[in-house]
Amino acid sequence: MTLSELSLKEYLVEQTRFVDQELDRLMPGEDTPPETIHKAMRYSLFAGGKRIRPVLCLEAARAVQGGDVDGAVTVACTLEMIHTYSLIHDDLPALDNDDLRRGRPTSHKMFGEAMAILAGDSLLTYAFEVLGRVGDARLVEELARASGTVRGMIAGQVHDIEGEKQTPTAELLDRIHRAKTGALLKCSLRLGAIHAGATAEQLDAISAYGEHIGLAFQIVDDILDVTQTSEQLGKTAGKDAEQHKITFPAVYGLEQSNAMAEEQRVLSHEALAMFGTRARRLHELADLVVDRRS
Amino acid sequence: MTLSELSLKEYLVEQTRFVDQELDRLMPGEDTPPETIHKAMRYSLFAGGKRIRPVLCLEAARAVQGGDVDGAVTVACTLEMIHTYSLIHDDLPALDNDDLRRGRPTSHKMFGEAMAILAGDSLLTYAFEVLGRVGDARLVEELARASGTVRGMIAGQVHDIEGEKQTPTAELLDRIHRAKTGALLKCSLRLGAIHAGATAEQLDAISAYGEHIGLAFQIVDDILDVTQTSEQLGKTAGKDAEQHKITFPAVYGLEQSNAMAEEQRVLSHEALAMFGTRARRLHELADLVVDRRS
Repeated sequence: MTLSELSLKEYLVEQTRFVDQELDRLMPGEDTPPETIHKAMRYSLFAGGKRIRPVLCLEAARAVQGGDVDGAVTVACTLEMIHTYSLIHDDLPALDNDDLRRGRPTSHKMFGEAMAILAGDSLLTYAFEVLGRVGDARLVEELARASGTVRGMIAGQVHDIEGEKQTPTAELLDRIHRAKTGALLKCSLRLGAIHAGATAEQLDAISAYGEHIGLAFQIVDDILDVTQTSEQLGKTAGKDAEQHKITFPAVYGLEQSNAMAEEQRVLSHEALAMFGTRARRLHELADLVVDRRS
Repeated sequence: MTLSELSLKEYLVEQTRFVDQELDRLMPGEDTPPETIHKAMRYSLFAGGKRIRPVLCLEAARAVQGGDVDGAVTVACTLEMIHTYSLIHDDLPALDNDDLRRGRPTSHKMFGEAMAILAGDSLLTYAFEVLGRVGDARLVEELARASGTVRGMIAGQVHDIEGEKQTPTAELLDRIHRAKTGALLKCSLRLGAIHAGATAEQLDAISAYGEHIGLAFQIVDDILDVTQTSEQLGKTAGKDAEQHKITFPAVYGLEQSNAMAEEQRVLSHEALAMFGTRARRLHELADLVVDRRS
């Protein structure tokens, strides 16, 4: 059976396996000295993540090329390293102070705070070592920018921390979300497209899709934090409200937040028009992101 | 007056100015939102560092090319970003818990722990954004490897933390030093040489020089921690002994440590033979590293 014949569920299991296998190949083994840091890196990296960013990267490459692209899975893995580093540092006592992540103790609970800080640093650093080996400096610049302080992921974290003291407005919410989750999701798609040799038009279309599903993703995440239990989430529920975070339900209410997620679903489908059936999985993934609510 | 006519002292002042100017050009301004993170990045980056790594990078490029190399100062600045990130994270309460750095409050004392963690992450990330823009993926791979967990800077920090519980042996000391300080110093020289288009032989010679002055640097640092006051050091003196760190004086005693620094001085001069007078400043810098003791 080829990849395209699989149901979405089977496809996601298969892609997760594909990404996990490459991550395992790329990461230093647990017996590589100093052992502790490599154990800590692998502990968080192989904690049952859904590999959404790598899969988006792989599918963007496929939408552009019409088939698998050499080395795309290696590029895809660097996104998971960056995402995992951000979770480890976010969970630290000085930041969100979370004990539980994906149903398991967080890195600092498991390895101590010093090692958790270094494990985050290490995953961040290693993502760039891998991209350096891939040999395309454009990918390095894109990933660093999306992870950085000017409209990138760290900007989102800073806005998030400082937002706790501010009035929740639509404008602030937009700024936080675009940086915090949106930048890296969009970057996941752009890296895949660039690696596959996308034209400027293709890259624009992929980026627009990325903006829309990024926004949908954050809206749905915020909704889930209000409506689900900790057990369902695999992390502590209700933390956003408790920490007075600026979220979509807090600014727009639940009903309008749901409508906004639907709107982004429609726009993300429209952005993919030029790719035809090559973008089939990207269409399915947009639906999946929004339908996590139900 | 040309650069080569300056005394070593004048030359270092001039080079620090040259590097600081480029750093200022590269870094987002303090009024770029989110302001706090850019203030924190600049606070630590412009804290009066001696820019040893950037200067080594620039001089390696000059030794190879016989003159200034376009863009070498941009490459050089990324080494200072990495070095500064490592200091910020090293100083955190969970690691060395230092309140004072270069005579000023450390980042977490000034901006709080959350922002200090993010400022370190940001400088690390930004170094790669800048190298990505330079456009040579080999430089990215070199810098990431030297900063990483397998014989790189983070490996050194982990060995350092874990070493506190271990018997100080010559072998462990060698492993810690090579990773902790040696890797990034050697990398500083290699980045400059690679950027300048070094041959394999030139790169080997520059790397050997880097190993010797790296070792000299660490030996002298360890000696100074024992023999100088906090005021002279601009940071808390005697911390190594207090934390039972594995240092050269602890393993070899002061007298033999001094002799070892002298030996590395001689070897670093010898490694530069093929560059003739083009390596004049590298010779002077080797002497400077060792003579900090007096």
